[in-house]
Amino acid sequence: MVMRKGATDEEIQAVVDRLQKEGFGVHLSRGVEATVIGAIGEDRARLEALGLEAYPGVEKVMKVTKPYKLVSREFHPEDTVVRVGNVQFGGGEVPVIAGPCAVEGREAYLEAALAAKAAGATVLRGGAFKPRSSPYSFQGLGEEGLKILAEARELTGLPVCTEVMDPESVPLVAEYADILQVGARNGQNYPLLKALGRIRKPVLLKRGFGMTIEEWLSAAEYILAGGNDQVILCERGIRTFEASTRFTLDISAVPVAKGLTHLPVVVDPSHAAGKRAWVPALARAAVAAGCDGLEVEVHPRPDESISDAAQALSPEMFKAMMDEVAAIASVLGRRVPLPDADPVRAAAD
Amino acid sequence: MVMRKGATDEEIQAVVDRLQKEGFGVHLSRGVEATVIGAIGEDRARLEALGLEAYPGVEKVMKVTKPYKLVSREFHPEDTVVRVGNVQFGGGEVPVIAGPCAVEGREAYLEAALAAKAAGATVLRGGAFKPRSSPYSFQGLGEEGLKILAEARELTGLPVCTEVMDPESVPLVAEYADILQVGARNGQNYPLLKALGRIRKPVLLKRGFGMTIEEWLSAAEYILAGGNDQVILCERGIRTFEASTRFTLDISAVPVAKGLTHLPVVVDPSHAAGKRAWVPALARAAVAAGCDGLEVEVHPRPDESISDAAQALSPEMFKAMMDEVAAIASVLGRRVPLPDADPVRAAAD
Amino acid sequence: MVMRKGATDEEIQAVVDRLQKEGFGVHLSRGVEATVIGAIGEDRARLEALGLEAYPGVEKVMKVTKPYKLVSREFHPEDTVVRVGNVQFGGGEVPVIAGPCAVEGREAYLEAALAAKAAGATVLRGGAFKPRSSPYSFQGLGEEGLKILAEARELTGLPVCTEVMDPESVPLVAEYADILQVGARNGQNYPLLKALGRIRKPVLLKRGFGMTIEEWLSAAEYILAGGNDQVILCERGIRTFEASTRFTLDISAVPVAKGLTHLPVVVDPSHAAGKRAWVPALARAAVAAGCDGLEVEVHPRPDESISDAAQALSPEMFKAMMDEVAAIASVLGRRVPLPDADPVRAAAD
Amino acid sequence: MVMRKGATDEEIQAVVDRLQKEGFGVHLSRGVEATVIGAIGEDRARLEALGLEAYPGVEKVMKVTKPYKLVSREFHPEDTVVRVGNVQFGGGEVPVIAGPCAVEGREAYLEAALAAKAAGATVLRGGAFKPRSSPYSFQGLGEEGLKILAEARELTGLPVCTEVMDPESVPLVAEYADILQVGARNGQNYPLLKALGRIRKPVLLKRGFGMTIEEWLSAAEYILAGGNDQVILCERGIRTFEASTRFTLDISAVPVAKGLTHLPVVVDPSHAAGKRAWVPALARAAVAAGCDGLEVEVHPRPDESISDAAQALSPEMFKAMMDEVAAIASVLGRRVPLPDADPVRAAAD
Repeated sequence: MVMRKGATDEEIQAVVDRLQKEGFGVHLSRGVEATVIGAIGEDRARLEALGLEAYPGVEKVMKVTKPYKLVSREFHPEDTVVRVGNVQFGGGEVPVIAGPCAVEGREAYLEAALAAKAAGATVLRGGAFKPRSSPYSFQGLGEEGLKILAEARELTGLPVCTEVMDPESVPLVAEYADILQVGARNGQNYPLLKALGRIRKPVLLKRGFGMTIEEWLSAAEYILAGGNDQVILCERGIRTFEASTRFTLDISAVPVAKGLTHLPVVVDPSHAAGKRAWVPALARAAVAAGCDGLEVEVHPRPDESISDAAQALSPEMFKAMMDEVAAIASVLGRRVPLPDADPVRAAAD
Repeated sequence: MVMRKGATDEEIQAVVDRLQKEGFGVHLSRGVEATVIGAIGEDRARLEALGLEAYPGVEKVMKVTKPYKLVSREFHPEDTVVRVGNVQFGGGEVPVIAGPCAVEGREAYLEAALAAKAAGATVLRGGAFKPRSSPYSFQGLGEEGLKILAEARELTGLPVCTEVMDPESVPLVAEYADILQVGARNGQNYPLLKALGRIRKPVLLKRGFGMTIEEWLSAAEYILAGGNDQVILCERGIRTFEASTRFTLDISAVPVAKGLTHLPVVVDPSHAAGKRAWVPALARAAVAAGCDGLEVEVHPRPDESISDAAQALSPEMFKAMMDEVAAIASVLGRRVPLPDADPVRAAAD
Repeated sequence: MVMRKGATDEEIQAVVDRLQKEGFGVHLSRGVEATVIGAIGEDRARLEALGLEAYPGVEKVMKVTKPYKLVSREFHPEDTVVRVGNVQFGGGEVPVIAGPCAVEGREAYLEAALAAKAAGATVLRGGAFKPRSSPYSFQGLGEEGLKILAEARELTGLPVCTEVMDPESVPLVAEYADILQVGARNGQNYPLLKALGRIRKPVLLKRGFGMTIEEWLSAAEYILAGGNDQVILCERGIRTFEASTRFTLDISAVPVAKGLTHLPVVVDPSHAAGKRAWVPALARAAVAAGCDGLEVEVHPRPDESISDAAQALSPEMFKAMMDEVAAIASVLGRRVPLPDADPVRAAAD
Repeated sequence: MVMRKGATDEEIQAVVDRLQKEGFGVHLSRGVEATVIGAIGEDRARLEALGLEAYPGVEKVMKVTKPYKLVSREFHPEDTVVRVGNVQFGGGEVPVIAGPCAVEGREAYLEAALAAKAAGATVLRGGAFKPRSSPYSFQGLGEEGLKILAEARELTGLPVCTEVMDPESVPLVAEYADILQVGARNGQNYPLLKALGRIRKPVLLKRGFGMTIEEWLSAAEYILAGGNDQVILCERGIRTFEASTRFTLDISAVPVAKGLTHLPVVVDPSHAAGKRAWVPALARAAVAAGCDGLEVEVHPRPDESISDAAQALSPEMFKAMMDEVAAIASVLGRRVPLPDADPVRAAAD
């Protein structure tokens, strides 16, 4: 707590009394320009609830401790590695999740899955439940979409990642998916995060486009606090005044978050860019910044996609991008894994 | 669609062909600086899905139509009035929803409810389910809190407004509350919005701090599209680079939203400010800008509140604010209603 | 300075040593979660220059003192009143500066000045030097425009306010203008601010659309530090992700800035809105929030204006707005002054 | 111009008439949802000045043409290469400008210059005139600083880049510097940009932290319109709600700007990060995204620097960063040039 210059002794004492009454240690420092009162204790949430910034004479309250604990690097200094089948996020591997935005139909999706794999994807993506800003947009195929995803996994041998939008659906989605994705609009949907804390499958947690890095890590804390420590963070762009891109990819979030947490951090360049021509540059930048994976939209014939078509790469563009990001990863001593050419044959070997 | 200067005839034709194949009317306009292709049709969602911004030669895609319909003033030119008991939002009335942020306990809440009423509140607020950025913060009393709210309604004769956080809880909350509130973090929680479209009670829809006005109105469209047209919009601040206030109250959202929609627009100055000293100024500004109501945090002894204490007004500050906003409303030919002094006696009269 | 949890004694000592070497008092506070090192001294600029956030073990550096002094309310608790002719900004008066965006020609401007006065303006505005984002836009009439402004002052008896864009032009503009305006794009043009510190005429300092309130006050400090304490601050909207208005009027800046500084704070609702229909609502909100004046674009026939036409009010709209803001000001015990009907007669009385 | 649904024929005709009166071609397109009026002509500035968005019945005005011309890739499709001594920006070369933030003294700067060169810098940086948000911060050594820069050039054989803050100083700075830098706070200082259009030396134009990409390119247009086409653009972070970094590096600005303009685009990761630990990751990301150069703060003993110390790299960190960015550049078929080991000897060879 910083007291206003000229705060009276009574005002200072009122803050000290309240802190002591609530069980905090108190540390008083009187300077030329201001008096600073330190509250010592572990319970930041309780301290915040006191609303001391509104006490007479208080200028501002500054937070020294973090609102999360289990996700912090101080609590768990080594990198967490999240394993999904043969693929691992963290620990020097940089896997690429790819596929169409939405599962639009069985044949189309299976074709897309094979194309994504052929071009280097090691995890498949595809939405069965789609959050759309208009109620009149395509909302996804639901459970039918999940079944198609399972079939694509069967066909390609690749794990699948798909979004879940409400707590009730978590068990259903967990039955089919290898990674459950929380979308940017649900980054602070706490009932959903709590439900994901109760399962034991990897969760890919997108940063909401209006969320600070601290809030994003606090959202992950909800999942870890529930007992599920298999969380992959995903930066996908924040909302700023710059309108030429759909969102502004916060590339700094990669080194910043990796300094604060042991969890792997992946980047989705597709939703940030909103236009396919810019996706490869952002993907390269993300790997160069040190991310632990990418999530990219790929579609066999992007112009026929019915969801987010403008940002999906063709398999050819995706393949070219994969070659570049693999080379950049190796500059940093990291590796972009490739899929087994033929999972059936691979198993027979 | 604006074509890049120098786009070839083939590129232009490819866009035209796609639009015609999808059933859109096409209107071509060749200018000195650019060629513009207009797509004519009602289905904006379908058009967006085509991803034409990624076609060769396309410079940008500009949206002419709105993504919402039922909430638009073009569709429904007269103001919607949402009635809750004797209170009405819209139509020249400017009711004030007030009370503590959270229901923290029975006695404390009943006392707070009486104090809020005595100072002029016509609707009570109080959270039984609290979205908190830390999993370790107080999460609300749940159904017990809802029962306390119902008791407060009984005691004061005032309707109650409380938050609902997940679709599963909608029926339970609807049983107790007169207005169901959607918090800023759930402004794009579509399963929740759909569940609220299925009930027939008023919904107060807060604008997410990262949401545009267009997205906020589209979120309301989800509720109206489900058949529930009793929606009150609530501006509560957006996230910007300015850190001296908790959020930046977007005061322009009042005239802008009221121009675009027939739904009533209320303002929450408490969460935007984050500090009680600034709340009355923002409340006055909101009423002066033409809002249809206010939602304000009031606590009998703010410093003892355990949630958002810094921004709660004392009953004395709230009373002084009410006098000012009532006078400002009357300048604009509008009225801030006051509660019946004694609902029991009033009923007996 | 907050030290990282687990910072070593050596790391802590290194920071302490550096601070002591630079002449700061040091205050050490070891808590459960973190160690906090307080630097005691007046020279914040010097402290910032040390870059202690990059020392090993340092988690963050938090600023307790303000970067400005002469503009702060702590230094000068009473409101500063800036007088311009018979008009005063601050001290309960809420004068309205009005006129066209730019001086486009002699006759047109004189007509506009008379119309603005007839509708209630007490200070005239009009740009002779115009900062335009395109080099091909109209750049203003320059000194010829200043002469027209002087003639308009003669004709109406009202003081005039006009923009100055570079330090070299300050003496010239000061010769003609009663208030020198610094535009939003020059809010951190320090050579210009220094030049304005050397004159003895009122300066209206617009907040840059990317500037924090703290930076805006620091910009004013440049002028006061030069010896000119006649500064009027002007909020005119900041840049955010919301694109429906040209800028987002930061209405909270009124109570926040007035709490931090003794200087008068006026609001320009025209540039924030960017569209005339929204200007009156924002003007009312600004006065209700407690501002000390308004600056509004008014044009006799807005649709013929060649600069910012979309946001200029017609004299009729302006007159209606004046009536509303005067009534709102009186609710707060403040007064919107009106011009003397006839300055010649007024002088004769 | 998009007309509101339900706009009358009179309203539509009024817009058409005005456009025709002003010499624009008009193209009318009536759709189910809206009527669109296209204005055909080259003069966007003139069109904007009409303020048609405020005409009755007009919903919005959308801009199809760009506000700049000479800087656009449509006007000049091939990359511009800016040559400074032996160094070139653009055309596949990725030179690195490095050195301390400010010239603090002769010996210190010469030592820093030698260290920067030894670690791989090919252009030196250092501020003689410093824009500082506080008037009490070190403001630079002025002309004395310029002389030190010239001596450093002599000593190292490297060209020097330094900031100019006002139009009056342009000739003086141009006498000493090889590249004149426009800082972020002066990105829309039009008198300064015009003065730089009149010289014939390279200009490094930083994007203001509140400026859109379109405004940044328009600022460059001022310089090119004046006759100086040697402009290097520099992205250095924009202001957003995320406070963990000093600014948010807009990495997407690299591919976006390079698509729109032929001018080289460099990136300053130091000011964006604000903390040295994050600088190498951002530098790598920038090169991977395809930038044409970097500008980095390096200081022999960063902790003793008196300006922006927290973000300066030590020569060791800088050297390690150079190795990484050189390897990443070569992945993209580009080259990070290194300085001649000994300019004297090189000349003798």
